[in-house]
Amino acid sequence: MLINQQPYRTIWHDAAERYVEIIDQTRLPFEFVTHRITSFDMMLVAIKSMQVRGAPLIGVAGAYAIALAMKEAPSDSHLSQSAALTIACRPTAVNLAWAVQRMQNKLMPLAATERPSMAWREAAAMAEEDVHQNRAIGQHGLKLLQDQLFEVKARTAANPLNVLTHCNAGWLATVDYGTALAPIYAAHDADMPIHVWVDETRPRNQGASLTAWELARHGVPHTVISDNTGGHLMQQGLVDMVIVGADRVTRDGDVCNKIGTYLKALAAYDNHVPFYVAVPSPTIDWQIRADAIEIEHRQPEELSCVSGLTPEGGLSHIRLMPAETPILNPAFDVTPARLVSGFITEHGVVQTAGLAALEFSIRNID
Amino acid sequence: MLINQQPYRTIWHDAAERYVEIIDQTRLPFEFVTHRITSFDMMLVAIKSMQVRGAPLIGVAGAYAIALAMKEAPSDSHLSQSAALTIACRPTAVNLAWAVQRMQNKLMPLAATERPSMAWREAAAMAEEDVHQNRAIGQHGLKLLQDQLFEVKARTAANPLNVLTHCNAGWLATVDYGTALAPIYAAHDADMPIHVWVDETRPRNQGASLTAWELARHGVPHTVISDNTGGHLMQQGLVDMVIVGADRVTRDGDVCNKIGTYLKALAAYDNHVPFYVAVPSPTIDWQIRADAIEIEHRQPEELSCVSGLTPEGGLSHIRLMPAETPILNPAFDVTPARLVSGFITEHGVVQTAGLAALEFSIRNID
Repeated sequence: MLINQQPYRTIWHDAAERYVEIIDQTRLPFEFVTHRITSFDMMLVAIKSMQVRGAPLIGVAGAYAIALAMKEAPSDSHLSQSAALTIACRPTAVNLAWAVQRMQNKLMPLAATERPSMAWREAAAMAEEDVHQNRAIGQHGLKLLQDQLFEVKARTAANPLNVLTHCNAGWLATVDYGTALAPIYAAHDADMPIHVWVDETRPRNQGASLTAWELARHGVPHTVISDNTGGHLMQQGLVDMVIVGADRVTRDGDVCNKIGTYLKALAAYDNHVPFYVAVPSPTIDWQIRADAIEIEHRQPEELSCVSGLTPEGGLSHIRLMPAETPILNPAFDVTPARLVSGFITEHGVVQTAGLAALEFSIRNID
Repeated sequence: MLINQQPYRTIWHDAAERYVEIIDQTRLPFEFVTHRITSFDMMLVAIKSMQVRGAPLIGVAGAYAIALAMKEAPSDSHLSQSAALTIACRPTAVNLAWAVQRMQNKLMPLAATERPSMAWREAAAMAEEDVHQNRAIGQHGLKLLQDQLFEVKARTAANPLNVLTHCNAGWLATVDYGTALAPIYAAHDADMPIHVWVDETRPRNQGASLTAWELARHGVPHTVISDNTGGHLMQQGLVDMVIVGADRVTRDGDVCNKIGTYLKALAAYDNHVPFYVAVPSPTIDWQIRADAIEIEHRQPEELSCVSGLTPEGGLSHIRLMPAETPILNPAFDVTPARLVSGFITEHGVVQTAGLAALEFSIRNID
């Protein structure tokens, strides 16, 4: 997508296969900074500290972590060890484990000398696949929005279709296009009158800092609200659809996503607002059941401290509550399938009952 | 309640009836500052800027605003005008209008010369009534918690009864004791093992800044969570009861309270967690229907800017998102009666169906 008229992806590597470049998402929205990641260890830090985040993007970042590890030492033991270290960085999103296992499966049968160049090629291929999947999600979601546009009533720029989203499942959460935001970009580009309610998304404020930033860059009308506000807006008839991303979807259709997603799903259900999950197939975990998903607990400082601009224009990091305040900070919750209207995948829109058929067709394609 | 072993109320006046003193709640939790309010205009600023906030407290603050106005000029026209100006400060909480109208009804029949001293007396009487009501709410709520304690299972300090609350309905929201927190203080003082999940409560963070502060002062175990977290905790069986306050309750049992209350009520209902509203009778509006309640919209800066401590220990006000970010900031939502388990009033615990009988008995007492 465009930043200051220049096309960007969230992650890319140099032609000589020496380093990876990323956008440092912890510096947005006030500073646009890219980092050159030259070692395996640097990439692990980038994943853990959420300089790169979003389920699809950390999958690709994990693949590149393995490529960097292979550049450093392409032995069997180093491959196994670096794979395990990478997967442990973020336990909840399935894409990371999926991508790293795919790298392992691809590299382990090869001679050590062949591994580095194959690793770069495979990581780059996964980045491309992500872009294609998200573009397809955008097109399938666009059709859904067009149907909704005609269903709800005639909409105009002054009275647009209102979509609510939680956290950031935009192009910053992927390599490009995004998952939940892909249909929105497609709709905007097709001149549909569309407006996005952006949940602030505490504790890390990915909605206010990332989703609002990327929507603004692309010119999509949007409004930031507190996480508490979406239910009230639905009661008032001001939300026509909810679209969120996911960190892991079970074959039963349960959706693990950013903490607070469940509350929006409850409100959507209570107000007859369609609730869709945009999800590329690597985010579907065909093995796990919802109660076995490990919910990552992150540092209390994510809630107690925030960064922002001082009146003088500098960046400052401040503490919102006394250091001794007890805090619990689980990063994800699980929305039960019964609250989900459907899944927007790269293969089309399916309901929970259709996930089994989707798995069958994906396995046969593979 | 105690602050550094010294008993405080949130509002009081001097013996010579010249001024009112308040705790400036916008400076908490990092600075404990009291202000001397010497004029009607100063009190309006204190109410609008939320130096005093919480439905019961702004009722009493509104009564004192009229006392200050009568000190300045006790004419009929000044009484009517100052009453209208006071009510307009905060449209959603019914207590403010209720308190100001009671002052008007009391003062209007009197000769102008008699109004100032009666105004101080009546405002002080309302403060006392609030304290008595809240103490009674605490006792009725305590019984509810004791019943719940035995119902859920044997609880210990290591495995306490978990109550979730939203916003601040503690003693800082009233003259003393609080509404939603009154039962919790009563339970803690009765040596019940109790722990409070404190919603941060964006955008103004009253949970993290005020509720956590006052619970810590009183030694009640608590944990601050993001507003997104309560649903997940309920799914995990970690919440035994929700207790919130209210800014206005209709006779149908619909509850207008801090934005986000509705989402917690939905999650409580979905997980069979009892959801109680602690409400002194002046907060019940016997006239209005839910759809006629005016929802106050506040400044975008409440969401986009926050205050906190810098690493150097000074207070700083920073901006979380670019100034051009579009923001909507409704301060309240309405939780439908069907999601409410009951109301903890100073007259006892009643369900929605019992509100009509409560009204009848209150009218007959009056």
